Amino acid sequence: MSSSRQGILFILSGPSGAGKSTLLGALDKNRDFVFSISCTTRAPRPGEVNGKDYHFMQEDEFQKRLANHEFLEHALVHGNHYGTLRETLMKNLEQGVDVLLDIDIQGAAKVREYRGGEFLSHIADVFLTPPDTGILRKRLAGRATETPEALALRLRNAIGEMSHWKDYRYTILSTTPEEDHRQFRAIMDAERCISRRLNLELENG
Amino acid sequence: MSSSRQGILFILSGPSGAGKSTLLGALDKNRDFVFSISCTTRAPRPGEVNGKDYHFMQEDEFQKRLANHEFLEHALVHGNHYGTLRETLMKNLEQGVDVLLDIDIQGAAKVREYRGGEFLSHIADVFLTPPDTGILRKRLAGRATETPEALALRLRNAIGEMSHWKDYRYTILSTTPEEDHRQFRAIMDAERCISRRLNLELENG
Repeated sequence: MSSSRQGILFILSGPSGAGKSTLLGALDKNRDFVFSISCTTRAPRPGEVNGKDYHFMQEDEFQKRLANHEFLEHALVHGNHYGTLRETLMKNLEQGVDVLLDIDIQGAAKVREYRGGEFLSHIADVFLTPPDTGILRKRLAGRATETPEALALRLRNAIGEMSHWKDYRYTILSTTPEEDHRQFRAIMDAERCISRRLNLELENG
Repeated sequence: MSSSRQGILFILSGPSGAGKSTLLGALDKNRDFVFSISCTTRAPRPGEVNGKDYHFMQEDEFQKRLANHEFLEHALVHGNHYGTLRETLMKNLEQGVDVLLDIDIQGAAKVREYRGGEFLSHIADVFLTPPDTGILRKRLAGRATETPEALALRLRNAIGEMSHWKDYRYTILSTTPEEDHRQFRAIMDAERCISRRLNLELENG
């Protein structure tokens, strides 16, 4: 058999309280893909590893790469820059390596729209969300590490984000960590069977 | 949560020797869908149950329904008519019930093209195939219930059919019965997460 296939760009987004961190942790245990690693100008936190958690870089390097259009998407958050390098991503996809990009709704939109859709044929985007605002409320309140005001703001933001499920090809209504993981793996497996991504010559034994 | 979704029309095709019967048997054990049951004018074989294996009907009834355009697709095989009723199928899909249609390549093409694509948004079509002709040859020869001539014909037909994998959204390269089943279930699970099929109002707790 002569077989190969395109790499798939799995995008995972979801509001705070959807269970995204737990899902990413579960996916990390059976890694038949690579995580896309963002560049950032913020300082590493204790325990963070350069090249694993982020590509940490100085402001001037980030700006140089930005001017060179090396970022597929970038954002300024609390005074720090974050960005995804186009080159690294494309190289993986071209070599048939699947990439998982954990990114927010705005970032996902930028990746879809990049250069009129350069990545579209590679994308399998998944929105993980609590099934309703009641469950969202319970999950966020369960954390109890915030002031009531901060919690109310986080809740408001999360509800606003939930309305974006339709932007994604897939929506997972979060139930248990096991079930969320099972559904995401099903999506990965199914996407790997999509005929137009396959390069087969079945006729040759 | 207010949630509902469209029914999905899973189509399964594959050449002789692909392992389709085994897969159908495995799927039958966890039936969260209904099998589409064909109508036929051929006589029931021993053990076959009307309304389960087929809807058995007389020639005149079949012809009446045919004249009434009640069949989504139909075919004449060895002098017997076979056909799928549009009404039953559509009713299930509209009620959010998933349907599995085990059908050949020509039948699948007719279902896709029916009335300019009436069913297209419901369809998830899957092609199950041996990964190469060497494995196909081994599997068919393993049956050993045929004359060499009949086997050669079956092999030639199967190889011709294998070239149709690109007509299907998904291609499963058959390995073991367990793995074929796992992949088909993954496709079912993933298809049920497709956002455009969902009718959600997440904002209402």
